[in-house]
Amino acid sequence: MKLNIALLAGDGIGPEVIDQAVKVSDAIAQKFGHEITWKPALTGAAAIDAVGEPYPDSTHEICKNADAVLFGAIGHPKYDNDPSAPVRPEQGLLKMRKALGLFANVRPTFTFPSLLDKSPLKRERIEGTDLVFLRELTGGIYFGEKGRKDGGDTAFDNCVYTREEVQRLAKKGFELAMTRSKKLCCVDKANVLETSRLWRETVQAMEKDYPEVEVSYEFVDAVAMRLVQWPNSYDVLITENLFGDILTDEASVISGSMGLMPSASMGAEVSLFEPIHGSYPQATGLNIANPMATVLSAAMMFENFGLMEEGKAMRDAVNKALEAGVVTEDLANGGKAYGTKEVGDWLAANI
Amino acid sequence: MKLNIALLAGDGIGPEVIDQAVKVSDAIAQKFGHEITWKPALTGAAAIDAVGEPYPDSTHEICKNADAVLFGAIGHPKYDNDPSAPVRPEQGLLKMRKALGLFANVRPTFTFPSLLDKSPLKRERIEGTDLVFLRELTGGIYFGEKGRKDGGDTAFDNCVYTREEVQRLAKKGFELAMTRSKKLCCVDKANVLETSRLWRETVQAMEKDYPEVEVSYEFVDAVAMRLVQWPNSYDVLITENLFGDILTDEASVISGSMGLMPSASMGAEVSLFEPIHGSYPQATGLNIANPMATVLSAAMMFENFGLMEEGKAMRDAVNKALEAGVVTEDLANGGKAYGTKEVGDWLAANI
Ligand SMILES: CC(C)[C@H](C(=O)O)[C@@H](O)C(=O)O
Ligand SMILES: CC(C)[C@H](C(=O)O)[C@@H](O)C(=O)O
Repeated sequence: MKLNIALLAGDGIGPEVIDQAVKVSDAIAQKFGHEITWKPALTGAAAIDAVGEPYPDSTHEICKNADAVLFGAIGHPKYDNDPSAPVRPEQGLLKMRKALGLFANVRPTFTFPSLLDKSPLKRERIEGTDLVFLRELTGGIYFGEKGRKDGGDTAFDNCVYTREEVQRLAKKGFELAMTRSKKLCCVDKANVLETSRLWRETVQAMEKDYPEVEVSYEFVDAVAMRLVQWPNSYDVLITENLFGDILTDEASVISGSMGLMPSASMGAEVSLFEPIHGSYPQATGLNIANPMATVLSAAMMFENFGLMEEGKAMRDAVNKALEAGVVTEDLANGGKAYGTKEVGDWLAANI
Repeated sequence: MKLNIALLAGDGIGPEVIDQAVKVSDAIAQKFGHEITWKPALTGAAAIDAVGEPYPDSTHEICKNADAVLFGAIGHPKYDNDPSAPVRPEQGLLKMRKALGLFANVRPTFTFPSLLDKSPLKRERIEGTDLVFLRELTGGIYFGEKGRKDGGDTAFDNCVYTREEVQRLAKKGFELAMTRSKKLCCVDKANVLETSRLWRETVQAMEKDYPEVEVSYEFVDAVAMRLVQWPNSYDVLITENLFGDILTDEASVISGSMGLMPSASMGAEVSLFEPIHGSYPQATGLNIANPMATVLSAAMMFENFGLMEEGKAMRDAVNKALEAGVVTEDLANGGKAYGTKEVGDWLAANI
């Protein structure tokens, strides 16, 4: 296969972890006979510094014409204490999601047996946890009209959803449930919000098309509780943008393997793959960041092209490295810590 | 002191746990020389059954004219699977909050040493946890304009906040922080929402009036993570209505003592006190529900009248019962389980 991949390294440790994912992907390409062309492009604070905006048109052109986007991380401390600054890295992220139509954010949470003890939760609560959130990513209160009135003393944010937007996301949820344990949970706040009632009635109407899928409906506050109590009671969860933002981050800490979690943002034309961790500015350039989440994101990318064996080979290499203790300091547990680059080299060599 | 207390027992186990709180409060009144007049009133499904609405005017009259409201729980399974039913118990709750102006929901999360092992979190993560959420309760997306367009295919919910609403809540937060460890965390999503930016700038402007309070600003998704990772790093947290709904429920499970957590909803004129647990319909009438959260809610009520000794006497009785193993089945750990009524009797006798 010939693959054109847009490469958005971003800020902080982004470039370092992306380098390793490229290295491992290239090893895959060589082994399985694919040809990958990487198209680097600017994003985030790096893009603001270079051209004054976090998601420049030139970057959009590259992404739009790529077969997929591999993304590192964005965010820089100089923007952190001023959420109303005129240009911020996050704006680039939102603009990119909307412009590329990345409507479904896929966030798996699973456990690695060797890392269970890193979880803040007790072992018996998380053993076997393997759930996936599908978060709607281009609608809701993130993109509704927002502004001020009364000379600035009143602020508003409008949350809007259309039936089509819900259907599009829910369809992915049903389909994913069919490939897993056929359990789907729709997370909403239908006892209060009209948008949630639209979500619930739309998903209810789709149930008949997937008679094998068992669908449950839970309120977002109840899920926020049960995720901590019994994460392994969930399988596939679908939800709207803001609830998904909160719950996927909550879910990311329960497995104890947050530094390893990949994610995908799927669009109709192109999809994007990125680790869930941030740009970790303090670690920039120190060769200590864990590249595994980015490598696993690249594995999701291969699988999304239907290249299942390739994805599996990457996952296997990561598991092998974990078992062999070829890990960065966050996982070293007082033992030997490898550098970002050395872990990448080892993974590539073990493909 | 002469106290007029509106008594809203509500649904499910509400009446049973309220009975015990009344019993223990009466013991306090007798010991400390107060006179409590209880004014029972209908609410929730019980009120719908009786008069067709969940928060009737007659109930509002009683609450408005009371010195405080003691509340049990509402909710009935017959309303659970139809969030768009024309009359629902929750609507009564929202109407009551708005009509009584209960703008600040106070939700403490603290640990009982004897119950630490009930937590899904590891002991070392929760030891010493003692935090309080102040959730704004009468604004935001709960009460903004909501509806449908495009023949029902588009739904919207508007989130609105005024500077005054934020100030009112934040003032309570700063004041509470002054009585505790002088740390305040403002939880928002100021990188995306205009209402959050209003929250943040309003709180920032108030900092100068409380120079001793150290204020931090965190995004709601980050707090959803850190609450599970390091709950004992927080003290007082302030936030808007919907974030508060999600985060207070999340916080309630971390201490392992969810069944014991009280709460208050403060207004300018009257305040309401209630356990955070629900109406637990399966347990109705079985004399097995744990009355301690309701008793501790009554303790908060006394303290809110400035009757600190009275509140402390109630808390002490609860602690003593926990130590003596005079507990309902949820806490019995295979040992002897007392009935709801028997725990209430024991607490009253130990005042
Ligand atoms: C940075 C921020 C705008 C973003 C979001 O809220 O979507 C982030 O939290 C995420 O989840 O990707
Ligand atoms: C029942 C529901 C409307 C309510 C809310 O969302 O406020 C409840 O979850 C709560 O937190 O008191």
